[in-house]
Amino acid sequence: MSVVVVGSVAFDTITSPSGSVKDILGGAATYFALAASYFTPVRVVAVVGEDFGPEQEKVFKDHGIDTRGIEHASGKTFRWGGSYIDNLNEAKTNFTDLNVFQSFQPRIPQEYQDTEFLFLANIQPTLQADVRRKMNGVRLTGCDTMNYWITGARKELAETLKLVDVLLINDTETKMLAGETNLPRAAHKVLAMGPKALVIKHGEYGATIFFREGAFGIGHHPFRAPALPIEEVKDPTGAGDSFAGGFMGYLASQKQVNREVLKRALFYGGVMGSFAVERFGTERLQSLTREEINARFQVFRELTHLE
Amino acid sequence: MSVVVVGSVAFDTITSPSGSVKDILGGAATYFALAASYFTPVRVVAVVGEDFGPEQEKVFKDHGIDTRGIEHASGKTFRWGGSYIDNLNEAKTNFTDLNVFQSFQPRIPQEYQDTEFLFLANIQPTLQADVRRKMNGVRLTGCDTMNYWITGARKELAETLKLVDVLLINDTETKMLAGETNLPRAAHKVLAMGPKALVIKHGEYGATIFFREGAFGIGHHPFRAPALPIEEVKDPTGAGDSFAGGFMGYLASQKQVNREVLKRALFYGGVMGSFAVERFGTERLQSLTREEINARFQVFRELTHLE
Repeated sequence: MSVVVVGSVAFDTITSPSGSVKDILGGAATYFALAASYFTPVRVVAVVGEDFGPEQEKVFKDHGIDTRGIEHASGKTFRWGGSYIDNLNEAKTNFTDLNVFQSFQPRIPQEYQDTEFLFLANIQPTLQADVRRKMNGVRLTGCDTMNYWITGARKELAETLKLVDVLLINDTETKMLAGETNLPRAAHKVLAMGPKALVIKHGEYGATIFFREGAFGIGHHPFRAPALPIEEVKDPTGAGDSFAGGFMGYLASQKQVNREVLKRALFYGGVMGSFAVERFGTERLQSLTREEINARFQVFRELTHLE
Repeated sequence: MSVVVVGSVAFDTITSPSGSVKDILGGAATYFALAASYFTPVRVVAVVGEDFGPEQEKVFKDHGIDTRGIEHASGKTFRWGGSYIDNLNEAKTNFTDLNVFQSFQPRIPQEYQDTEFLFLANIQPTLQADVRRKMNGVRLTGCDTMNYWITGARKELAETLKLVDVLLINDTETKMLAGETNLPRAAHKVLAMGPKALVIKHGEYGATIFFREGAFGIGHHPFRAPALPIEEVKDPTGAGDSFAGGFMGYLASQKQVNREVLKRALFYGGVMGSFAVERFGTERLQSLTREEINARFQVFRELTHLE
């Protein structure tokens, strides 16, 4: 099964303790699409400017990613600048030039309408809801959001959450969304807002999936995937989107979504996130093999596996 | 095999969002001893004052804990007051009255000399080293420390670290001790200071054990135990010492210390820590059954177990 991702394609300028890069291909939809492409066919809905040329297009094409949903607008592509000097876990935003992304109105190509899996990357919640409503045949919708929308567009976000199956956010976002500092209690409050499952990404500690009672017919015991302790974190940008790509891509590649498949998806999410941070931008995600992915999946599995 | 713990016995006054308690039995050695007592015979070396009476003694005796190493000095027992109002993960210390603990000189009863497992709870590093040197027959020594000694007694701590097998500390302490913010790199730096293994406690995210190359004859791949997401954290006091008690107690109960045993010990550490925080003070640790411990071990195991 294929998966559609709706989100940003961007040029990023990043500084980390490992160095600096300028105007490299990034954006949530890019990281997601590359990560998911190792598992299943991927289709992108995004907007780019005139500075997005054959070189960038080739990155998607080389991974068989369908770019018919990438709209080419006049103007410049979204640009973001961030640095991780004091804290590798949180970017300090240096600049955000929305450019063509400012008036982004996602258009779903007719050819995408048979897609069964949809991922709404971190964009304005009303746009997320619009896309979800336009994709009637979708079987499972994943969704990301961020503090900016949780505080600034809470009502709109609440409407969107009623339309999604799996929400993927981090610890801080979960607590902020729920207004509750205890993580499991916060998780239950978020699940009461609509999603069947909530994936909380803990960064270097892995991720936990909480289920609404009876969701997917699998009971409600949470499941946790550990993360690999990584010695060389070059650039954390896109780790969460790569996680989502691994998670959704693996789900879409399976015949059914049951507890065991969701557990494995959580591990594959962690695997793809851990690869993403090893190099600047999408460099590592562009050059992976399925064998490397499988090998790291085994390492993650053995990290907590008791005989 | 029995385990000796050297550390504090105290009366704690604690405030958390769940309430307040005054002058309840606490101290690192107390939490450790109770947690370890479910796995193996435990012997305590500590000092108490005249306010430590039959009621407190009974808590140890009821769990078959050997208290011949608890010295009764004239004066008051160590008292600590702390609160967790804004942050359940870190206590704000309200007062520390060292009392008889100020001049604590650990004395090891002759009857303890055949003990093979030793845990040096968080006390002055020179005292820890003295105890270790006095216990010649010891096969495995575990050790705790804290920021106060890492910054204030670094040289003394470095000497102690050469004498211990397993150091159990948290993320912040590891990074501070190593002078390195990347956790796996910090872990390797700490291992180079002496310990064969380093257990890093991540609080609600579990714990990771890093091994020095060739230590215990088991290679050097780290292993991680997840923690259960806990909805009701009443009082985090003693969680780390209870973790150490479960870890060391389980190790001491096994015929040999190999990779699989160390992995299971890490899980049992997490299990005992998770029980400790469910009630104020040592209340939950006093009332456990081995069946409850085994059941939670299974829950922890299933939390990350793939078919």
